[in-house]
This record gives sequence, structure tokens and C-alpha cells, in this order.
Amino acid sequence: MSTEKGSISINTENIFPIIKKFLYSDNEIFLRELVSNAVDATQKIKKLASMGKFDGELGDLKIKVAVDKEAKTITISDRGLGMSAEEVKKYINQIAFSGAKDFLEKYKDVDDKNPIIGQFGLGFYSAYMVAKEVEIHTKSYQDAPAVKWLCDGTTEYEISDIEKTERGTDIILHVAEDSEEFLEEARIETILNKYGKFLPVEIEFKEEVINNPAPIWIKAPSDLKDEDYIAFYKELYPAGEDPLFWIHLNVDYPFNLTGVLYFPKIKQDFQLSREGIQLYSRQVFITDNVKDIVPEFLQLLHGVIDSPDIPLNVSRSYLQADGNVKKINSHITKKVADKLGELFNNDRKAFEEKWDSIGLFVKYGIISDDKFYDRAQNFLLFKNTENEYFTPEEYKTKVEALQKDKDENTIILYTSDAEKQDAFIKGAKKREFDVIVLNDVLDPHFINTMEQKLEKVSFKRVDGDSLDKLVDKGLTSESVLGEKEKEKVEGLFKELAGNNVVQIEALPADDAPVSIVQPEFMRRYMDMSKLNGQAGMMGNMPTMYNLVVNGNSPIIAKMLKMKGEDRRQTYAKQLHDLALLSQGMLSGGNLTDFVNRTFEEMA
Amino acid sequence: MSTEKGSISINTENIFPIIKKFLYSDNEIFLRELVSNAVDATQKIKKLASMGKFDGELGDLKIKVAVDKEAKTITISDRGLGMSAEEVKKYINQIAFSGAKDFLEKYKDVDDKNPIIGQFGLGFYSAYMVAKEVEIHTKSYQDAPAVKWLCDGTTEYEISDIEKTERGTDIILHVAEDSEEFLEEARIETILNKYGKFLPVEIEFKEEVINNPAPIWIKAPSDLKDEDYIAFYKELYPAGEDPLFWIHLNVDYPFNLTGVLYFPKIKQDFQLSREGIQLYSRQVFITDNVKDIVPEFLQLLHGVIDSPDIPLNVSRSYLQADGNVKKINSHITKKVADKLGELFNNDRKAFEEKWDSIGLFVKYGIISDDKFYDRAQNFLLFKNTENEYFTPEEYKTKVEALQKDKDENTIILYTSDAEKQDAFIKGAKKREFDVIVLNDVLDPHFINTMEQKLEKVSFKRVDGDSLDKLVDKGLTSESVLGEKEKEKVEGLFKELAGNNVVQIEALPADDAPVSIVQPEFMRRYMDMSKLNGQAGMMGNMPTMYNLVVNGNSPIIAKMLKMKGEDRRQTYAKQLHDLALLSQGMLSGGNLTDFVNRTFEEMA
Repeated sequence: MSTEKGSISINTENIFPIIKKFLYSDNEIFLRELVSNAVDATQKIKKLASMGKFDGELGDLKIKVAVDKEAKTITISDRGLGMSAEEVKKYINQIAFSGAKDFLEKYKDVDDKNPIIGQFGLGFYSAYMVAKEVEIHTKSYQDAPAVKWLCDGTTEYEISDIEKTERGTDIILHVAEDSEEFLEEARIETILNKYGKFLPVEIEFKEEVINNPAPIWIKAPSDLKDEDYIAFYKELYPAGEDPLFWIHLNVDYPFNLTGVLYFPKIKQDFQLSREGIQLYSRQVFITDNVKDIVPEFLQLLHGVIDSPDIPLNVSRSYLQADGNVKKINSHITKKVADKLGELFNNDRKAFEEKWDSIGLFVKYGIISDDKFYDRAQNFLLFKNTENEYFTPEEYKTKVEALQKDKDENTIILYTSDAEKQDAFIKGAKKREFDVIVLNDVLDPHFINTMEQKLEKVSFKRVDGDSLDKLVDKGLTSESVLGEKEKEKVEGLFKELAGNNVVQIEALPADDAPVSIVQPEFMRRYMDMSKLNGQAGMMGNMPTMYNLVVNGNSPIIAKMLKMKGEDRRQTYAKQLHDLALLSQGMLSGGNLTDFVNRTFEEMA
Repeated sequence: MSTEKGSISINTENIFPIIKKFLYSDNEIFLRELVSNAVDATQKIKKLASMGKFDGELGDLKIKVAVDKEAKTITISDRGLGMSAEEVKKYINQIAFSGAKDFLEKYKDVDDKNPIIGQFGLGFYSAYMVAKEVEIHTKSYQDAPAVKWLCDGTTEYEISDIEKTERGTDIILHVAEDSEEFLEEARIETILNKYGKFLPVEIEFKEEVINNPAPIWIKAPSDLKDEDYIAFYKELYPAGEDPLFWIHLNVDYPFNLTGVLYFPKIKQDFQLSREGIQLYSRQVFITDNVKDIVPEFLQLLHGVIDSPDIPLNVSRSYLQADGNVKKINSHITKKVADKLGELFNNDRKAFEEKWDSIGLFVKYGIISDDKFYDRAQNFLLFKNTENEYFTPEEYKTKVEALQKDKDENTIILYTSDAEKQDAFIKGAKKREFDVIVLNDVLDPHFINTMEQKLEKVSFKRVDGDSLDKLVDKGLTSESVLGEKEKEKVEGLFKELAGNNVVQIEALPADDAPVSIVQPEFMRRYMDMSKLNGQAGMMGNMPTMYNLVVNGNSPIIAKMLKMKGEDRRQTYAKQLHDLALLSQGMLSGGNLTDFVNRTFEEMA
């Protein structure tokens, strides 16, 4: 055989069941496809009329969906273009001959106000996912007899003339036995609401219009007031609280994208659903999984994105990875950063009030996207325990004087739980140190990122060590205890501390006699392990801490002077228990003993 | 026009790009499809040989995958059946003409040891997701010249004779520019490991065989030892601890299903991934999302399920909802319940030791599946604070004598945190009550379910009220306080308790003078709200509690006798603080004050 050329052919008998049954992952999609086709036909007749190519009466263009439980049919009726017998043969009988494409070619100069959606052909055949037989009754807007097309799901069809006076198309599905769930009106209503809530043509079901054909994202921002945005938000999330603010997206190049993204109020970290953003394609709902289009840190936003340019696979439910998608991604990030910068500059006070909700997005963005950090450093805020807000720059200036250590590093003291670490915060304030609040689940990551971004800045949790060591100025204060006494004190606490370190320090006399600190490095390592889900490895490790004994406290002096080892030991135990209590570490039997002992002393 | 009949046709030009680009949601699938085809061809030649229909030398049947970064090609070579020019035309040029189907028809009486996988045609075309041009070099096992097929992704192909002496097929992909990531060996290795780890024919990449062609699930349980199961588990989860036990699934009717499910050791509730079970179809990895096949409560298991009967959509990555799936679901549930019952009956002690891990599955199953409960009630265990285990029946018998209330209800006392509720547990034990531990995240649901299942049984948390009210025998003990004194006591605690209820009770004199309880009903309601994610509504509500003052405690008597309202108030505050401490409710500034006050008293 010499070289031979030929054409690849597709065997209809074998591919047809795939198109009918397996192309879509979800049965209910049939309704989206058929209603989209009806919308398409309706948009087309409107366009022809507006272009003067159709001068008949448009009439009521509502699309009607009806269920007949007796007859076991679902009917979708439109008053759109309709089809002649020739067109039925062309668009229905020849699968994947895109009707919309043909039409667009012909009228490609028309404007974007009446978009063409849907694809004849492939979408139509999704009807067979639920129907054993499908009828089409149709009459063209042009002078042609009405026809009826009938096919029971094999590749054989039948076409004949019928009486039909009204222009348009009725699709009648004879529902298969295994799909009778779709004969429930409630089911159909749910599907229509899911996919068709914002279709551009009115859809009537049970004598009511179920959609809003002109959602705000297709309108010009200049025509909209705050109330409109809030009202639309309520339409999307009837149970939701008012959003903090929103961003109206409107892109033409290099892709088409419109939409409105809302910043919700956040109450509990990550209790949030990641399904707050809905993706539409020309007002047809596609999915609420926008994983690949919206950067991860913005998936907690709410709202709507509509783009005909987002590449979908044939079932329209799965996104294709694609260069455009990356562009959309970074465009949305930029828009969000711009909006945040604008809010900050225009009304800093309002911005600060919203920071508890906004902060999470901003920090998430900073952690995951360097470009976002470049923009965000101008509106990133640290909140201190007095509820004052500072940008990183401002904060450095504020604390520099007192909180610079001997190596010229600025130490930022933070608390992860102002309630639990109250005693330590009070200690810091006594020295006029400032403490910021970093209590988000993301903050361990955020701190690491910020230490890389900011020069000569270290973050230290306020209970990470004694304050003189946290902000180490290289000074040594004088100890009132001699070496022998130190040893004696250490001996008293050694057993109580178990495997933990006892450090005797010369602190101001009115500092706590005993306290428990968790070294920053160790604690961070464990926090990160937990966050990364390596709880198995680290979570089972006992919490390591250091017991700081203030050798200069008069209480320690009193203990040393006590007669009898027993009394000293009881006293040391009480001090140790109180230090544990301060850190929320006295629990179980030890706590019960402490409480009962104290009750007894009171009796 | 009278009635006219015809055939639906599929337009190749339009459907081809869909098959090539959009059918699969994930580019990397191409490798799975091509290697599966190679496996298929290899299995077929082996089968023919075993049937005596091929008597040539089989040779080394390894499938080889190679990447040539210079030439920008990926080559998949097998020594399987090979194809003649006629066969290439039939199987490659006519899309969706299933080669496997043809073959099966012809040799349908052969055994199941050499399963046929893959579908010629459709799967092959996934090559074009990453390749701009594909070559096939192939030589049939039958006497026919070797041929080369070439197609650049249009519907035009070219076929010619070539020199090729070795039987089998090489598929050479000329990788497109936008897919050059697939020229990285590391990427190819990752994909091969993901999809091909257990393919039934050896796959060689970089001169090493990367798969285990005979995984244990295809072997007979009688041929396997515990070590084999554990070794396979380590193969699946190299970092995992040994599993607790396993279930070998082997079903022929009404569907084919094999597999091994492992019960992992559970350390932290729901820190677990739900992607522990891998789904295979004839040893080809499909997905680790088994959402619809395995009941929700068993998705925390690990292991492998292999079934050619699980309906997949054309891309094989999404399951179709289907009656068979439901049957598989309930079969797996039954098998798991049988295995658990067997373990319980054969070695109760070993079963009890594993209960901390098993319990979570069992409870989850009981909550979500009535049928599972029917089986599980025989091996469901309650663990008490002494680490003793009882079936519900046994437990009722154990506690009936002391814990039956005046309405003949058996009260099961439980703790959700033995550490935190230590004081209350000790109180219960003083009265010889028993306390069980219910500290799983699921337990609020589990308790509700059990109260519906068990008659005349109530669960009450041990700190839900004073013990005399939790197990209300209808007896009233005598109060040493008169009405006036009661009022005075109430007055002292009223302000401290804020909005919470102060209840003065006549408890045994040596019970705590003051304690804080959280009424069972209220607490449960809040627990459920939290679990159901309604934290927004309930989470912000202040925790309601009752302050129980033991009027018969000598400490209360002492307080009443104190001179001076100030002293009494200070004393009451200390008692209240200690009650809060016992419940872990003294925190922040109040805790710091308590600790500092106590330090000062010690000075």
C-alpha cells in the first residue's frame, strides 16, 4: 500500500447514545438547554424586528413551561423565530450544526443588547436524558407551513405538516418512566429557579413569571443606586445580611465579563461557603463552583459573574483550564485591590469599621498572591487591643521608640486571644508596649508572610516569654537572689514543671511571681503543623512551656523564708497552679483539687 | 408535505472538536486513555495465546512510556495485538466504533481473569487534547504489513506502509506548544502513578516498572494473609499508620465489584479526608471521589473499590446516578455491618480496644441509616469514664437500679469532656452514678437518635443540673435555711449571676457550696445549632446557665454569719468565681483579677 488519504468518519449509531445520555453529568440540565434554546429563538425574532427584517406583530414573547402530570409531558413553548420543515431538517436532524453560529455569521454587525445564546443541535438532544419521545411543533416567522417532528430516541425521525397558527416552537417531552420525578411541578420550579432566574426573556410557569430578565449586572453602574445593589443582593441571598460593599465588573477586552461581587459581613472564620459566587453565561446559570475563575482568596465573596468567554466543556458545567481564565483571575484581583484602596482613601473610618470582615480577604490575598500584596500594603491594617488601626508603616513608627531590641529589630507584640492572654497584655501595657490582635485562623501564615515582607520586624506573641526577653534590649537587671537561693527556688518548682524549663529571672518586683510562657518558635511550629493538617504528628506532642519565676517578687522572698519544706512546697504548688490558671492550663482533676482546696480554706 | 421519515445525521466537522477538546474535563486524562488502550491490546494477545488462537512468541509484554523533550514527543509502545491497515481504518478512523465491544462479542465465552478494558476510538482521540499531531506505528499479530497512520487533528488522515518488525503499536504524540508541561518526566510520572499504579500489565517508565499488576483486591481472600493487607495499605498510604481491620469485597451479582476497605485509626474527629477511597474500573484509576457509591458515613474509610459496572459518563470521571449505584451502596453498608458484628462476636476485647476509632463510623451510620442501626445495636458500645464498655442493653441493666427517675425513665449521664467536667463527674461518682463519655463531634446527633430508638431512656449531661434534679426521684430533702435566709443568699448572688437563674437547693452538706450548671435542653439546642452551621443565629447568644447554691453547705452558713455586707459580698464573689472556674468560665480580666487577688492574699 502506498500512502492513502481519507476522512475520519463518526458512526452515528454509536455516538448518539453518548450525546443523549452521557454528555451531561446531570439530568436536570435538559431544562436549562431547552429553555435556553427558546430564549435564543425569542432573542432572534426581537433582533430581526429591531433591524426591520420582520414586520409582523411580535405579540407576547413570554416563554411558557408547563407540566401535564396526566399526560406525562413537559412542554416548553416560545414565540420566537419558529422553523420551517427545511430548518428542522437542518438544525435538528443534523447534530452539532450550530444554528446560533449560522445566525451570528449572518447578522454579525448587530449590537450586544440582544445576545444570542444556546446552540441548536447538541443542547436539544439532552431532552432524551429524561424523555422517551420528543415532539416539536413549530411555525416559522416566514411564510412556511407549520410542521411536527417526532423522534423516539433512535436515530429515526418522522416529520409531517400540522395545524399551528401561532409563530414559534413547542417542545413536548414525553417523560420516560425512570424520570417521572420531573413531572412534579415543584421539581421543575426548582430547576427553573436555579438556571433561569436571570434569563433575558420572561419565563412563565404556573401563570407566574419566575425570572428577572434585567438583572443589575447588565446595567450601567451609572444608572444604579446603592439600594439597587442591596436589593439585588437580597434577591440572591434572601437570608443574608447587607453586604459591606460591592464591585461592579465590566470588561470588554481581552475578554467579555460583567458581574457584581459583594463583600459579605464575616462572622466566623471560614464557616463560610465557597459557593457564594454564581457563574452565568449570557444570563444562563452555569455553576456556583468558580474555583478556576476567581482567585482562591476571593472565593468567599458573593455575587455574580457573567461571561460568554469563559471556556466551558460541552456540558457547560466544567471549566476548561485556559489562558483566558488566568487573565480573568488577575483582572478580578486587580479590581478588588483597586476598590479596597479607593474605600480606604475615601473614608478610612468606614474602612476601619469594616476591617474585621475585610481583613480576612486582605490577609488571605497577601499570603497567596505577591502582586496583591504590592497593592494591599497601602490599606492593610493592624488593629491593637485598644481598637485602634494602623497601616504597617504607621505602626512601625508608633512602636519603634519603645519596642526596638538591641539588634535594631522592631518587635510587634500580638495576642491571638485577648481574653485568654489578658494577664500578659496587662503586663505589656504596664510597660507601655502596644499589642495587636491577630486571631484569625490565617494569622500564623500571615505573620510568616509579613516577616518576609517587612524588614527588621519580628512578630512575637505576648505570652511567648517574659517581656524583657521578648523585647530584648540587652540590659540585665539585678537579681535580689543569690545563687544558692536561686537553686532552692528552682528545686521547689522543678518537679511541678515536669519536663518544662524553669527560668528564674530578675523582673520588676510587682510583676507576677510565677508565669507560664510558650516560646514563640515552638508554638509557631505547632500552629503551622495544625493548620497544615499534620495534627497527627504534632498535635499529640505535649505542649511545651517555660515556667518563669520572678526572683525579685516579694512573694518568692516570702516563700524562701517559710519554715518547713512541706509548707514551701504547698506554697510553690499554689503559685504554679495560679500560673497555670492564668494560661488556661489548669484543668481536670488538678482544677477540681484547686477549687476544692480553696473552698476548704474558706470554710 | 405528508409524513416523511429519515435518519438523524451527525456532522463530523462540528462534533470532532468536541470529542477532541471538550469531552474530558482534564487534559492529563489522555495518558490514562492511551495507556489503557495499550493494556487492552496486550490483554487481548494474551487471551488469544491462552486460547490457542495465537501461537507466535508473546515476548516481553511490558508497555513502555517515553518522553523525548528534544523532539517534543511522548511515545506509548505496546506489544499487544497490533493492527492491520484495515483495522486502523475501522477502529481509528471510525470514531466510537467500539473495538472492545467487537472483540467481546467474538470471544464472549472467555474467563474474567484477563479483562478487556478501554474503548478504541473515543479514548484515543483524547490524545489531541495535548498533541498537535499523532502518529500510530503498528504491526498486527496476524500476517499483515506494518502501517503508519498520521493525523494533525483535522478530520483528514494519511496512512502508509512502514518498516516495523515487532508486533504491537506505538502511539507518538507531537506535543502542542500549550501543553509542553507534559514533556516534563516528573509530570508524566505523576500521572502514571495516579492512574496506572495497579494496571494489569507492567508499565515501564524511565527503565522502571511503575505499577503493581496484581493488587490484592483481585486475589482470593483465602490466598491472603494479614501482612498482605497491611502491606497493600502501606502501598496506598505510605505515611499512614496500620489500619484497624479491613473488609475484602467480592460481589458478582447483581453487579461486579471487588475491593478492600480499611478502617483507619482515627485521631481527631473529621480532620480526616473524605478522599480515602479510590475508585477503579478494571484496575484503571477513575477518581477518589466516591460520593455516590459509598454511603456518606463510610467515606472516611480507606481503600479501593473496583467495578466495571459503575456507570460513568463518557469522560469516565463523573458518575451517573443509577439504580445499580444504590444497590452497591447498600451492599457495602451490609458488608461493613456484618464485619463489625463478626469482630465483636469473635473478640470483644479487641473490638473494645478499637472502639475509639470504630465508634465514629458506627455512630455516623446509626444517625444516617435506620437499616444500619438494626444491625449495629448489637455491637454499639457506650464507654464510661472508667474505660468500661457496654452495649445499650447491658448498660441499661447496669444503671437501672440507681438511675431510674420517678417516671421510670432510665437516666444515662454523660460527659462531653471528662477533663472540663471533672468536678461534676466526681460528684456523680460520690453517689455511685455511672457516667459515659460522649465527646465526638457527632454525639449531639447521636444522642437525639438514641433517645428515639431506646424506650424510656434520657441522656443528660452530668453538668446539666444538680444531681438530684438530673435523676429526679421525686424526693425533697430538708433545707437548713429558712425563707428569710434563702432570700438573703439569693440577694448576695443575684448580681453576680447577671441574667442567669440562681437556684437555692438543699443538697448534701459536703457537696460544693456553689456550682454552675447548663440546662440540658438549652445546651443541646445550642449544640445542634452550632453543628448545623447556624452559629450566626445562636452562636452569638450569651451562654445561659443556672447558679446552684447549696443551702445546706456549711460554707454558705458561714457566709450568712459574717459581719458586714462588704465581707459577705467579697466572700460570695470568691465562691462565684470558683464555681465559674470549675466550669472553665472564668476568663479574661476576671481571671486576671482572681489570680492577682490570690497572689496578693499570699504575699
